[in-house]
Amino acid sequence: MSDTCCEGCNRPDLPWAGRGTDLPISGCRFTLYPMCDNFIDIILGGLECVDTSAVWSETDALSTVYRGKLDYVMDAVSALFASAWTEGVHMAIEGQVSKGCPGDVSGDSKLTYEGEAPNRAIVEAATQPCLCKLALYPMGVGDYIDDIARVWRMAEDRGLNPQTIHYATRIEGSIHDVFAYLTDVCKLMEASESVHHYVLHFTINVNSPTVE
Amino acid sequence: MSDTCCEGCNRPDLPWAGRGTDLPISGCRFTLYPMCDNFIDIILGGLECVDTSAVWSETDALSTVYRGKLDYVMDAVSALFASAWTEGVHMAIEGQVSKGCPGDVSGDSKLTYEGEAPNRAIVEAATQPCLCKLALYPMGVGDYIDDIARVWRMAEDRGLNPQTIHYATRIEGSIHDVFAYLTDVCKLMEASESVHHYVLHFTINVNSPTVE
Repeated sequence: MSDTCCEGCNRPDLPWAGRGTDLPISGCRFTLYPMCDNFIDIILGGLECVDTSAVWSETDALSTVYRGKLDYVMDAVSALFASAWTEGVHMAIEGQVSKGCPGDVSGDSKLTYEGEAPNRAIVEAATQPCLCKLALYPMGVGDYIDDIARVWRMAEDRGLNPQTIHYATRIEGSIHDVFAYLTDVCKLMEASESVHHYVLHFTINVNSPTVE
Repeated sequence: MSDTCCEGCNRPDLPWAGRGTDLPISGCRFTLYPMCDNFIDIILGGLECVDTSAVWSETDALSTVYRGKLDYVMDAVSALFASAWTEGVHMAIEGQVSKGCPGDVSGDSKLTYEGEAPNRAIVEAATQPCLCKLALYPMGVGDYIDDIARVWRMAEDRGLNPQTIHYATRIEGSIHDVFAYLTDVCKLMEASESVHHYVLHFTINVNSPTVE
């Protein structure tokens, strides 16, 4: 067990601010929160609908992590949220998507899957409205605010009505559109020449009882 | 509305990687998730017990933000979680504590409060066990992994049994001890000579039905 952010971070042969092992592994650690007595049934029911064969997966008492290729990871997470959606039930998901931690390890991932994302049909059909807040952390660079500004404009261009709130950006749209945007933010970071390690935190909720 | 992470980030007179306005404002944006049908009653019941007079507060449909002096902010957040705790109810809180965003603004805060934290008695009595995962992001610096390693060891020294998981660190302890640790991680960052902007994300849950 290393005393760092990710397993293996403490390897002296890896630069602290580099892309670490340069592995093509993206990951999402997330938790689903259905605010109802039968939350277990809703989570299990959602999981039954989702094909997770394209990702590596592990669940503990706090969260679940999917690791693999970015598109498949986000396909699985968004399909789970869409599948768990229940009429009238206030539900949230919080998660962090990340790639490039200096000490990430080659294990605990699936990188062999090819072809269309297995849950594409579920995700395409997820037109229910949702609210989202997000915070992007490009690590190890001084000009991280520029990237944050870039993805803010990207939300604006897509009609997701971005609003700046303390410590985060709020957007709104369909479950499909919001997850597509989050995925593209990650792609922008993964294609960056300067950012070698990023983390994107997000919270999405549906059927909120709060009147604004 | 600026197109950046915090209101005002886009001010050209502020350095991107500096402490911004150097204001002594810490903030925590958080959401409480009681997984039960009467989640509204539990949240409102918790809020009724908490004295928020030492912080500035704002709630929207996704989360609540407290801003002010760090000790009072964390006092209010931990007291809310402790007060909302209900026998047999699985409940989580997710949040982000932050200070030093380059474009933070002087408004939306309370900095005049002095003396003992108003909810100290509630927090001291919060001995219920909880699980926590956390991820620390010292922004704008190349050696951020060193800080992450430092706070990992701090958790170990306090007997919080830190475990490295992908993208986060897990700890466990009483609600009181876990929040005291999170607060001290923030204090370490706020006393740092090199880190001018940090964000600490955390998720805490109680009464988890998951057997590990």
